[in-house]
Amino acid sequence: MDPWRTAIATADATNIWIRGHEITSLMRERTFTDAIVLLHLGRIPTPGERKLLDAILIGVCDHGAGAPSCAAARIAASGNRQALSAAVAAGVLTIGDEHGGAGSTCMEMIAAGLAAGTRDGLAADAAARRVVEEAVAAKRRLPGLGHRVHTTDPRVAALFEMARAEGLAGDGIRFMTALEAEAARRIKPLPMNIDGALAAVLHDMGFTPPAGRFIFIVGRVAGLTAEVAEELTRERPMRIKFDVEYDGPPPTE
Amino acid sequence: MDPWRTAIATADATNIWIRGHEITSLMRERTFTDAIVLLHLGRIPTPGERKLLDAILIGVCDHGAGAPSCAAARIAASGNRQALSAAVAAGVLTIGDEHGGAGSTCMEMIAAGLAAGTRDGLAADAAARRVVEEAVAAKRRLPGLGHRVHTTDPRVAALFEMARAEGLAGDGIRFMTALEAEAARRIKPLPMNIDGALAAVLHDMGFTPPAGRFIFIVGRVAGLTAEVAEELTRERPMRIKFDVEYDGPPPTE
Amino acid sequence: MDPWRTAIATADATNIWIRGHEITSLMRERTFTDAIVLLHLGRIPTPGERKLLDAILIGVCDHGAGAPSCAAARIAASGNRQALSAAVAAGVLTIGDEHGGAGSTCMEMIAAGLAAGTRDGLAADAAARRVVEEAVAAKRRLPGLGHRVHTTDPRVAALFEMARAEGLAGDGIRFMTALEAEAARRIKPLPMNIDGALAAVLHDMGFTPPAGRFIFIVGRVAGLTAEVAEELTRERPMRIKFDVEYDGPPPTE
Amino acid sequence: MDPWRTAIATADATNIWIRGHEITSLMRERTFTDAIVLLHLGRIPTPGERKLLDAILIGVCDHGAGAPSCAAARIAASGNRQALSAAVAAGVLTIGDEHGGAGSTCMEMIAAGLAAGTRDGLAADAAARRVVEEAVAAKRRLPGLGHRVHTTDPRVAALFEMARAEGLAGDGIRFMTALEAEAARRIKPLPMNIDGALAAVLHDMGFTPPAGRFIFIVGRVAGLTAEVAEELTRERPMRIKFDVEYDGPPPTE
Repeated sequence: MDPWRTAIATADATNIWIRGHEITSLMRERTFTDAIVLLHLGRIPTPGERKLLDAILIGVCDHGAGAPSCAAARIAASGNRQALSAAVAAGVLTIGDEHGGAGSTCMEMIAAGLAAGTRDGLAADAAARRVVEEAVAAKRRLPGLGHRVHTTDPRVAALFEMARAEGLAGDGIRFMTALEAEAARRIKPLPMNIDGALAAVLHDMGFTPPAGRFIFIVGRVAGLTAEVAEELTRERPMRIKFDVEYDGPPPTE
Repeated sequence: MDPWRTAIATADATNIWIRGHEITSLMRERTFTDAIVLLHLGRIPTPGERKLLDAILIGVCDHGAGAPSCAAARIAASGNRQALSAAVAAGVLTIGDEHGGAGSTCMEMIAAGLAAGTRDGLAADAAARRVVEEAVAAKRRLPGLGHRVHTTDPRVAALFEMARAEGLAGDGIRFMTALEAEAARRIKPLPMNIDGALAAVLHDMGFTPPAGRFIFIVGRVAGLTAEVAEELTRERPMRIKFDVEYDGPPPTE
Repeated sequence: MDPWRTAIATADATNIWIRGHEITSLMRERTFTDAIVLLHLGRIPTPGERKLLDAILIGVCDHGAGAPSCAAARIAASGNRQALSAAVAAGVLTIGDEHGGAGSTCMEMIAAGLAAGTRDGLAADAAARRVVEEAVAAKRRLPGLGHRVHTTDPRVAALFEMARAEGLAGDGIRFMTALEAEAARRIKPLPMNIDGALAAVLHDMGFTPPAGRFIFIVGRVAGLTAEVAEELTRERPMRIKFDVEYDGPPPTE
Repeated sequence: MDPWRTAIATADATNIWIRGHEITSLMRERTFTDAIVLLHLGRIPTPGERKLLDAILIGVCDHGAGAPSCAAARIAASGNRQALSAAVAAGVLTIGDEHGGAGSTCMEMIAAGLAAGTRDGLAADAAARRVVEEAVAAKRRLPGLGHRVHTTDPRVAALFEMARAEGLAGDGIRFMTALEAEAARRIKPLPMNIDGALAAVLHDMGFTPPAGRFIFIVGRVAGLTAEVAEELTRERPMRIKFDVEYDGPPPTE
């Protein structure tokens, strides 16, 4: 087998480097959030960028025991009590297109919408309006808008205010802000959700679309571990019951 | 179904609280590492504690593409390229008793060793020496010592120095330091590894043993997401090949 | 890297062998259940053994959408609709000590109980009575007895009758039957469950204890795939909601 | 929470039904493969259909320890030795678009190609030729052809011969056979692989496209459990090592 190539991390008998940075220097001088940015972008973030990423990771870390990822992790922990990793993984597996996954889809929309806009000489807000127009014509749902629990998602304003205060609000935020307004005008008022907001900010920091999913996972795993810990210490095994109504073919003889 | 009880997180139509803290306050004022401690211990860490937990999370975030968790995540990504969560989860599932799992076992040993010591009026170092003695008698392996790659694990000294500098070195660190010395004397020189070191520090911060596993998972997921991202952008599908030698029954006719 | 050794399967440019059997011969002449036994025991089962293993695999294949493994798979499918493997895996991860895992624990008890009995000249039923006595003394729960849904588990009698009809009832079945009777006498009437019954039969067929878990997984995955398929075709995304009651610290200002 | 609706399985205090069939009748009279078809299609297969599905499940059950799903399961088992479910799940997670996933993509192509053909009065072989033509024009890869290990996949001929012998070869087989021939003529000789063959047969049996993935998973899980069992009994923990070559930024000071 050929050796695997990697530019991320390496270790020898007495040391470890992350993206070329000695691990003990990072441990002494940096925060975990710095390391997350370093792992993904290959550079240490500025203090403002670190603040924004901290806010994003906190913003998605947990949403209550009934959020699908938390619920799946708890059910797994309830049946399989000796395997902590398994329960956390079951929660991670619940993160996808419909739950925690809109971030990456939204980042694809932002990147494509802005690129098309640039080709045609449109600024970010005009580019966003065109994307709404196309979605209306194609009867396509727009990612990053609406939430099944929140009428207003408080994390959106907090995140955008922080980005503006740090001087880090760029075309991503302009695009998503215009998209929300135009969708409200042409479709219906659908407040932006955290996925739309983090997509805007991550775009402006230079992340590529898959990061929308990856960063959500990193943040949510913090909450999943706490949910699993609570399940194991506070609840008895197999306590979760569901009402099920069978409506299939009647019993055969 | 009865409602699920939880003391971790809750959300309503316009807000989210983590352990009673409004999410937007946390986003504005805290770091992700603060939130991790808050989720697990129900309190905001002191600046020194936060520094130590940052160091632990950075210390375990990645160990090269060939670490079992990273390798499993890459192989999953190589075969299943559309499912980012699946590849990260495959990596998480590789974390267990033999890989990244010694932390929790070690925390159990520290807690039990110190408790038994307290009952018999032994200080932390004497309690550790007794645990080594019992392990030698029972021919039991001691968790937290030795590493398959490192002759010296550089993260150990860095972490303990930081703990001492912050005035946070307690009985956990005393116990593990004495354990390493006594094991070297009675068994063979086996330098402490990061699992042993993080177990000592997490014990001193008030975490219970399962946190040894949970915190490792949270840190490593940062690296796993970067490993999967690199696999997907840099490598072609199904590129990983293994040499396999069949030594079972010969082919039948 | 040294080549991996294996005695299970091998492939070259034009053929594949499973335990030395050419794959196309197996495809033409054998059933899937034969292949499962071949993979695990290295031999083709007798017709009677195949019938018993078919019965076990059918017996555990599904238990309704509310069984923890099925529920976790459905929740994962509900949030992550593009990743079929992820949803099935989330179901698998829910299988553990408390759900579907008693089979392997029970097989360990049978193997150890019978071995200790043999050393002391006890037949299977006497060996089982001693195990109950020891469990009563140690206040230890006995695996394989009781079920949270069934007052009588119909699969037990069916399986044991089939084993007897095929002349395959051995010490495993004698042990578990005696265990159930003695536990009813000394503790309380706790009818044997499918885990206890499959443990007895798999023991009598020559499987080792981990097979109790593995065979359960193989059978249940059939049901999990059907549950996930139904979730994806019949239900809308994110339809699963939980009532959650927060009882942690009150909101801070 | 509203009760969950399901037409698959249900249980009460003394019985279980799968698709309306009493579980003990199924255990006594049917094979596991019958149950798999019943779970997915809601009907007991004919003897010929059962034979074909047995052949498919056997055909995909294992492909050697180095197949990505088997390798990921072994690496997980090597690091996390106490969690059997976790290792099997890691293997399942490796099954996706590039590994074991072509079956469902291929079934979509067959269904769409035949439906378009029917609209335009084309028989199955002409419909397949048109799909090849379109793929050539669009420079799109055709699923179900080619294999990284096999120059000829022996399972294809075995399966198609069995389908013909049982009188069950329909438009799916005609479509894939014509596709292979036309692709050889217009692109290059790319022999059909097992994914293409099982897609054809499952289509002809009335399965919908996702079954291509689900049936592969059910079959492969049999092999994954055997691979994990061998890893745990035969190998020491953490024995798997990879050569990794770091080519990222040089170490910083």
